[in-house]
Amino acid sequence: MTIYKDLAPSQRTIMTPGPVEVDPRVLRAMSYPILGQFDPEFTALMNETMEMLRALFQTNNQWCYPIDGTSRSGIEAVLVSVIQPGDKVLVPIYGRFGHLLVEISERCGAEVVTLEKEWGTVFDPGEIIGAIRREQPHIVAMVHGETSTGCLQPFGGIGAACREADALLIVDAVATIGGVPVQTDAWQLDAVIGGTQKCLSVPAGMAPVTYNERVEAKVLRRKTIERGLRDKDAESVHGLTVRSNYFDLGMLQDYWSPKRLNHHTEATSMLYALREGVRLVLQEGLEARFARHRRHEAALLAGLTAMGLTLYGDPGCKLPVVTCVRIPDGVDGEAVRAMLLNSFGIEIASSFGPLKGQIWRIGTMGYSCNQKNVLHVLGALEAVLIRHGVKVPAGEALQAALACYERSLD
Amino acid sequence: MTIYKDLAPSQRTIMTPGPVEVDPRVLRAMSYPILGQFDPEFTALMNETMEMLRALFQTNNQWCYPIDGTSRSGIEAVLVSVIQPGDKVLVPIYGRFGHLLVEISERCGAEVVTLEKEWGTVFDPGEIIGAIRREQPHIVAMVHGETSTGCLQPFGGIGAACREADALLIVDAVATIGGVPVQTDAWQLDAVIGGTQKCLSVPAGMAPVTYNERVEAKVLRRKTIERGLRDKDAESVHGLTVRSNYFDLGMLQDYWSPKRLNHHTEATSMLYALREGVRLVLQEGLEARFARHRRHEAALLAGLTAMGLTLYGDPGCKLPVVTCVRIPDGVDGEAVRAMLLNSFGIEIASSFGPLKGQIWRIGTMGYSCNQKNVLHVLGALEAVLIRHGVKVPAGEALQAALACYERSLD
Repeated sequence: MTIYKDLAPSQRTIMTPGPVEVDPRVLRAMSYPILGQFDPEFTALMNETMEMLRALFQTNNQWCYPIDGTSRSGIEAVLVSVIQPGDKVLVPIYGRFGHLLVEISERCGAEVVTLEKEWGTVFDPGEIIGAIRREQPHIVAMVHGETSTGCLQPFGGIGAACREADALLIVDAVATIGGVPVQTDAWQLDAVIGGTQKCLSVPAGMAPVTYNERVEAKVLRRKTIERGLRDKDAESVHGLTVRSNYFDLGMLQDYWSPKRLNHHTEATSMLYALREGVRLVLQEGLEARFARHRRHEAALLAGLTAMGLTLYGDPGCKLPVVTCVRIPDGVDGEAVRAMLLNSFGIEIASSFGPLKGQIWRIGTMGYSCNQKNVLHVLGALEAVLIRHGVKVPAGEALQAALACYERSLD
Repeated sequence: MTIYKDLAPSQRTIMTPGPVEVDPRVLRAMSYPILGQFDPEFTALMNETMEMLRALFQTNNQWCYPIDGTSRSGIEAVLVSVIQPGDKVLVPIYGRFGHLLVEISERCGAEVVTLEKEWGTVFDPGEIIGAIRREQPHIVAMVHGETSTGCLQPFGGIGAACREADALLIVDAVATIGGVPVQTDAWQLDAVIGGTQKCLSVPAGMAPVTYNERVEAKVLRRKTIERGLRDKDAESVHGLTVRSNYFDLGMLQDYWSPKRLNHHTEATSMLYALREGVRLVLQEGLEARFARHRRHEAALLAGLTAMGLTLYGDPGCKLPVVTCVRIPDGVDGEAVRAMLLNSFGIEIASSFGPLKGQIWRIGTMGYSCNQKNVLHVLGALEAVLIRHGVKVPAGEALQAALACYERSLD
């Protein structure tokens, strides 16, 4: 019989756009013995988590709960529950995850209309508003922060334009929730999907979502009574039925409501982790947390610039939690990443599609976003670049970052 | 600001048909710092987990990996990837989870044909084989162990009949994997879905699945090139495209293959838990583990019978890991359950649909399946029943169980 060894993962400094290091208090929460899913102590924790998520999403929505799956499961749950086959969905694309929204919407049977913007830039909200008025879509699905390009899309007026056109606005805030302001109600977002493994510093495996009454109304129109309870005539509404059982928000909200209608078995340890992760976010305070992310981003940028590296993307729409850096000419980006990992225990990210081999992506997210990590990555990157024959002004990066940190204390 | 307290779940003795108590070594595994999803150390753990799952499922299938979601996510992933809208699916139903297979298959666009058997019994395999020959379905989907009724369905000849009819046999082994033999290859099962939160004693949140080349061939026929890469003409295969991105086994197997094509972000801590849980199963040995489950079932049955309680269901097809007991006349089953939980910290389960209010369901699964727990639940149940005015021969249950344990040592 094969003998499998004890788990013994190496300690890493994870400076990617996710997954990032998990707060040790969250890791500890996962190690607690579990409760049964209908244990009153557990359902109380479920309710408390919903309450915390409302504060995180800055919303008064009743429905704020996690989908039991990784981030894209949250996106798919919202889209499959809202899109009726044939619905027109408008997707403004400015990076890889816009394409994912198209991919999922198409599989849900939508007629998808896209707007595309060159990677490294974002849309002027007016362009999207114009398209909404022209296309009159049922749904507008868009990405708030694109980790593929390190860009942040502003929403000015898009929410209002959706209400005017009676379209639902669905936003992928997987990369931004907990690191950058996401104002669900103030921006009139109808549904928002967050990610756990990025700025919340909880492992991947859950996707908190929120949605308002406008979304709920559509979900309830599509609700079917479970087989065995409904009569034959009800079969005629079949075209309306949500194509997924696992992702049917109508059934999920019954499970999360006082009715507690049995659906899946809630993922206990992941819920413990999410509750603890969001608790720590609220304890730090949203504004303080956003400021922390900006402070470490500034130090990282100062260091990278002092090293003579060039940033990628329009600085006017830079996503504070992801920094994209051009790989210097003649350097093998993957060799640099491998040396960072193997010699320094640091992980930074490569890139997708058109940017493959052209940029590195460095995350400053959640628990990973701290001075120790920023200085460690700058020092290590300098050493590795010198090792790869790049002319780097030795020592400048750390001095620039330290100076930046000192200034931020003033 | 609301102050949310530190997590402090009570210690429970969980004797339900899942979720059950988690082995402390699995809890410990979840508390380890995470690795990035493409860290070579992590992908090595993914590969190792696939290897362990092959031993667990008793298969040589290449594809054995978890779906990142709770058990029903695994069922939906297999069904949505295999069912092409219009496909005929035969579902033999003998409890609640057969209905779930119908519900999911219908949402996938299948034409569903059912066979129904009275709850508390199972099919003679010949009845199912007859239906396969008559109906010539594309797919047969069935439940191995029904936690709703505590019954176990034998497969004798069903696998061979499916091959003969060129039908795919998909089996929900959520309740049985790791507690009762599940012989994927020997029984000619084409796809099997396991659960984590039952006999594996890993928290809910992952669903290990396995499938063979027959399933893979159908999945690959339905595979579409991702948008942006395919040309316009390829749109005509749209009817074939799997209706889910998250659950598309074709994409998932690319992620789990050496290609490592980016899909979701693997749920690191849950993978640590699954790896540890399966490692402990293999360390105990499958046969020894199955024998352990039978040993504690026997003691539980001896105790319940000595208490004068009546078991529910045909004893000839009893599922060893779930025992269904009739609630004595005039007793409020929920009041008994509440007292067990509140005074003794023990959770047993109520029941679904037609059995509501009629039976309790007691699980003896995985880590929860041990002598301490069995004796604790018997002693507590006796006291609570006496408290509820039931005439119980005091002290008999524990004596009968102890005698049973002594005999099992001979």
